[in-house]
Amino acid sequence: MRPYGRAADALRTIEIETGVSPYAEGSCLIKCGNTHVLCTASVEENVPPWMRNSGKGWVTAEYGMLPRATHTRGRREAAAGKQSGRTQEIQRLIGRSLRAVVDLRKLGERQITLDCDVIQADGGTRTAAITGAWVALSRACNWLVEEGVLDVSPVHGQIAAVSCGLVGGEARLDLEYEEDRVAETDANFVLTDDGGVVEIQATAEDKPMPASAFDDLFTLARKGVKELVGIQRSAIG
Amino acid sequence: MRPYGRAADALRTIEIETGVSPYAEGSCLIKCGNTHVLCTASVEENVPPWMRNSGKGWVTAEYGMLPRATHTRGRREAAAGKQSGRTQEIQRLIGRSLRAVVDLRKLGERQITLDCDVIQADGGTRTAAITGAWVALSRACNWLVEEGVLDVSPVHGQIAAVSCGLVGGEARLDLEYEEDRVAETDANFVLTDDGGVVEIQATAEDKPMPASAFDDLFTLARKGVKELVGIQRSAIG
Amino acid sequence: MRPYGRAADALRTIEIETGVSPYAEGSCLIKCGNTHVLCTASVEENVPPWMRNSGKGWVTAEYGMLPRATHTRGRREAAAGKQSGRTQEIQRLIGRSLRAVVDLRKLGERQITLDCDVIQADGGTRTAAITGAWVALSRACNWLVEEGVLDVSPVHGQIAAVSCGLVGGEARLDLEYEEDRVAETDANFVLTDDGGVVEIQATAEDKPMPASAFDDLFTLARKGVKELVGIQRSAIG
Amino acid sequence: MRPYGRAADALRTIEIETGVSPYAEGSCLIKCGNTHVLCTASVEENVPPWMRNSGKGWVTAEYGMLPRATHTRGRREAAAGKQSGRTQEIQRLIGRSLRAVVDLRKLGERQITLDCDVIQADGGTRTAAITGAWVALSRACNWLVEEGVLDVSPVHGQIAAVSCGLVGGEARLDLEYEEDRVAETDANFVLTDDGGVVEIQATAEDKPMPASAFDDLFTLARKGVKELVGIQRSAIG
Amino acid sequence: MRPYGRAADALRTIEIETGVSPYAEGSCLIKCGNTHVLCTASVEENVPPWMRNSGKGWVTAEYGMLPRATHTRGRREAAAGKQSGRTQEIQRLIGRSLRAVVDLRKLGERQITLDCDVIQADGGTRTAAITGAWVALSRACNWLVEEGVLDVSPVHGQIAAVSCGLVGGEARLDLEYEEDRVAETDANFVLTDDGGVVEIQATAEDKPMPASAFDDLFTLARKGVKELVGIQRSAIG
Amino acid sequence: MRPYGRAADALRTIEIETGVSPYAEGSCLIKCGNTHVLCTASVEENVPPWMRNSGKGWVTAEYGMLPRATHTRGRREAAAGKQSGRTQEIQRLIGRSLRAVVDLRKLGERQITLDCDVIQADGGTRTAAITGAWVALSRACNWLVEEGVLDVSPVHGQIAAVSCGLVGGEARLDLEYEEDRVAETDANFVLTDDGGVVEIQATAEDKPMPASAFDDLFTLARKGVKELVGIQRSAIG
Repeated sequence: MRPYGRAADALRTIEIETGVSPYAEGSCLIKCGNTHVLCTASVEENVPPWMRNSGKGWVTAEYGMLPRATHTRGRREAAAGKQSGRTQEIQRLIGRSLRAVVDLRKLGERQITLDCDVIQADGGTRTAAITGAWVALSRACNWLVEEGVLDVSPVHGQIAAVSCGLVGGEARLDLEYEEDRVAETDANFVLTDDGGVVEIQATAEDKPMPASAFDDLFTLARKGVKELVGIQRSAIG
Repeated sequence: MRPYGRAADALRTIEIETGVSPYAEGSCLIKCGNTHVLCTASVEENVPPWMRNSGKGWVTAEYGMLPRATHTRGRREAAAGKQSGRTQEIQRLIGRSLRAVVDLRKLGERQITLDCDVIQADGGTRTAAITGAWVALSRACNWLVEEGVLDVSPVHGQIAAVSCGLVGGEARLDLEYEEDRVAETDANFVLTDDGGVVEIQATAEDKPMPASAFDDLFTLARKGVKELVGIQRSAIG
Repeated sequence: MRPYGRAADALRTIEIETGVSPYAEGSCLIKCGNTHVLCTASVEENVPPWMRNSGKGWVTAEYGMLPRATHTRGRREAAAGKQSGRTQEIQRLIGRSLRAVVDLRKLGERQITLDCDVIQADGGTRTAAITGAWVALSRACNWLVEEGVLDVSPVHGQIAAVSCGLVGGEARLDLEYEEDRVAETDANFVLTDDGGVVEIQATAEDKPMPASAFDDLFTLARKGVKELVGIQRSAIG
Repeated sequence: MRPYGRAADALRTIEIETGVSPYAEGSCLIKCGNTHVLCTASVEENVPPWMRNSGKGWVTAEYGMLPRATHTRGRREAAAGKQSGRTQEIQRLIGRSLRAVVDLRKLGERQITLDCDVIQADGGTRTAAITGAWVALSRACNWLVEEGVLDVSPVHGQIAAVSCGLVGGEARLDLEYEEDRVAETDANFVLTDDGGVVEIQATAEDKPMPASAFDDLFTLARKGVKELVGIQRSAIG
Repeated sequence: MRPYGRAADALRTIEIETGVSPYAEGSCLIKCGNTHVLCTASVEENVPPWMRNSGKGWVTAEYGMLPRATHTRGRREAAAGKQSGRTQEIQRLIGRSLRAVVDLRKLGERQITLDCDVIQADGGTRTAAITGAWVALSRACNWLVEEGVLDVSPVHGQIAAVSCGLVGGEARLDLEYEEDRVAETDANFVLTDDGGVVEIQATAEDKPMPASAFDDLFTLARKGVKELVGIQRSAIG
Repeated sequence: MRPYGRAADALRTIEIETGVSPYAEGSCLIKCGNTHVLCTASVEENVPPWMRNSGKGWVTAEYGMLPRATHTRGRREAAAGKQSGRTQEIQRLIGRSLRAVVDLRKLGERQITLDCDVIQADGGTRTAAITGAWVALSRACNWLVEEGVLDVSPVHGQIAAVSCGLVGGEARLDLEYEEDRVAETDANFVLTDDGGVVEIQATAEDKPMPASAFDDLFTLARKGVKELVGIQRSAIG
């Protein structure tokens, strides 16, 4: 029924390759099926003006998509002169989610920027970006410890994200593009390894859904995230 | 415990005054305590270029906040030269939520734009905007029927929205600004009058929350929306 | 002859309600017939960079119009990404006019920003904005005295503004939209309570006008401003 | 008393050289003392979208200043990414003034754009621009007649502009920069050759002025414009 | 002497992997040492407005660099709101170079856009982009032939590009970043497989260079391009 | 064969008038046939933020073209809201070329900005701008010496620029617009008075050119620059 005969509660093949950037303090390339996102973490020894002298650091994210990451070419945002509302929404989500598991005071007055650039898109780019960004962030913080800059990593929790949706009335885990564009409902879950909620965004595209359907999606998401956190741990080593 | 001695599961005083604009095809001023939002619905006899000849109409929304709607003056977005990511996120949410209860084919090739302008802000402006925008939209569609443009209103469902949050560990309904800025978790629910889910956005600000806490917020939201849809019905008459 | 049987030298019904904003240091809602403008004065304890260490303060203004303040919906300037030439012209006029009656040295190194937002437009929005802004500014300065920040108010004069025009050869006071769009000539006068000139902007739309016609408009404006300053005084109390 | 011993009611030396551009349909370089403005009129065989099929043409203007036209270098507006409020105000004034003496129906569906570029600035650039633009416009319209495109010129009146101001209490004609920056009041008059009013903009910079002072400025302006229209006529030949 | 003991006239290790994008009509990842550029060619069945009904197609290019492609993080151009002058200069160069070997009439009224996105930067990104873009373009044109859209490929020549420079007085081929930033002179050559000149850009950074030094660079470039075109041919197969 | 019967290796008539701006520290109007460029050098006693405390100064350039400098009117960049890629490319070239003959350390921590504004364009505007900018820069530096600000001029070399091209297979010096738009190849050379290379930009528009053709252009350029530097010297006096 699903593309490639995938079960309704199965993730696509997930691969996380770390250390892909020769310059970034932390990096990985995450592949969720045909969705490929390059995540780099850049450490800078200063914080935004409004945080100076606060004794706290900052974690933020930027998201981008190469023009031909998609089936048809999209307009380059740098050429258009601004980031779309969708892009801003996604990068705000990534940054907010990561900050929920970082102790900004322990980070000290420095900033870590996560750049999540979509090389290929086949649905679920924002959740792949969050899952990958956590890996890049963790590696950058470990690097800060190895370099003797910090005593302990300020990352105090593990998060991963996955999308779920109702397609033809069926609750499915980890939608790919062909499913996503016909789904009745699309929901993104950012959860911790022990099932805690960091962020939930559920949207009924065409018509409202019953509360029970939302519960089904939430259950699928917990299953998916449990698998994703295992893959993240293997990647970090 | 709460400001004004409000119970944890109580809404603020809600008032919806309709017909406040002499020009708009539908309008209302919604007051949720000290949060006041002016909502107007403007009918235009054309659709965006990408929808032409589709036989369908479009419903969209724009959101704004007067510079001194808040405790301290904010920068005017028109002067800054762009809408903030937050503004775009909110107006996308309002438009998406309304489209979930409108039959765009029945609307025909015309566009209805909901302008939601915050005159005073004391927390919960986006949910007030959605609740008010539904009223303005319904009145504009009724006007189209009265004018003989349409046979029946294309609005096929009723929605309202409310925010909930955990403050000091307690689940509370309809946060005001002073609560919102110290809340551990903030969640916005857009629900139908019979409890269907249109949109859920839950965000753990500082640290993840257990799934049970999310359930408590969801329960509060259903109670709040049940009251709001009654007030909407009275306002429309 | 005129809408509502108004005499050529009669103002529309003018109402000024003060204290309409719970947050601004000074505010009013001015209604000139169907033209409604919300004016707020925000005091900030700093000045623009080019004024620092000058020992002087600054008074400035911003002007905006809600998209559906008008008969047909106008584009939101924040969405368009810039303020129109008309908007900039108007806000420069408002700020300049107010500065003519403020002693910037007595104000001290702080800035007062007047936000004039048009809620409904039926002609004469810029003159209503000036008349209302003077009230909001005066109240903010009185507040500074009451708070003990200043010994005396730096506002040393009273101003009000009104538009006049030639319609079908007749000189008329306080044009509304239906008159304005067919007027041969449009003139805006900003005058003091004792008839002094702060600003005059007269424009012959289609063809030049004789100097005597300009004199007629000037005479009408003096009459109108005399009434307006009385209403301002009552509003301030 | 005045720089160069000029009388209070005397213009600076005015020169208008026509035909300075090898490409423009009409052009002149106007010199008012050290203020030099290059004015070109460009005829294009189409009108803005909102005027199509109206049977009428359009006359518009753009204004610019070379970065080092002034005593100290100003920022290039193209580099800044937008035209200042002042620039927009001026170019709107120039276009509006010229349209008051052009029969747009006789012009037919074509547009004439007046580019007024300040090569050197020493006060009075906007009034010099209007006086020069009228010459360039007239020459372009004469060219349209010579080419057989039009039967008669659509320019039905002659305008020129001049600034006046109060300096140390004295009413002076045609202020130069050193006077302008200390003037109590600045007023710009756009008048026809027979004394008709096209536009008046009077601004009291520091404090209001009595109505009698305004009358003095108006009288000076009429004298100045009478001389300017003679120089314009000689230039056109 | 050079990093990695490279000879003055030796290229870095060059690899070109084709077919890396699942969606683009032509694509490759080119690696010149640590400089990695992803090049995709997107075919669209329309041309820019100014080329419509000309019977000719268009080839254009866009260039971007991921924020952490470099040693320290650079600002994302989409977030900055515009492409830098450097970016525009480079993408204009890429497009112009490719058009020199394409018969736009044979291409027909369609556009091919080359997106050159730098994943890692270690000097020579613009020349790597050109060399890779030619491969992506050729593959897209071959695809058009295979699909039966075109009878023959409109690509009538082969080009590749390389940088050369004077470092410590020595002429070197294919500079990497550490050499580039200390080079006295930097020159980029776009040449055909038979030594024809498509584009030369030579810049003396600090002080002028003798003409003989330029000749040395030119000679090196011809040697380098000869090797590059062989690698391109192998890549296309 | 060439317009005005000019020989293939002849420059157009060149005139350089210095001291044309009453305010700039150095200025000239350069005329190369019908191409007229106004060049001003502005000295400012500060440097860009990234150069502060470096002990070095900075030389930069901005380029602009009046809208009707060309045969048909072009869009004003200030109105368009940005400088075109072409404009940025040119002004970067001018600044870079000049810095090659200035000792920035001897200049001290001050900035000289060269504004090159094209009053009339008939081909070769960027090379005329460079030739003229060097004159304006030299005069500004001489002024700094005369004023006693500097002991010696930091300008240590003389440069001039000229374009060459292949037209109908013939190598020609100093192309004018009618030649430029049909040229097979266009090349710009910035050379020193003793034949040193500062910048070469050669572009084959339609098809690649043989290396020997490039040599012919280079030879012509050296001849042209030799004449130009003589004219520059006479102009400076």
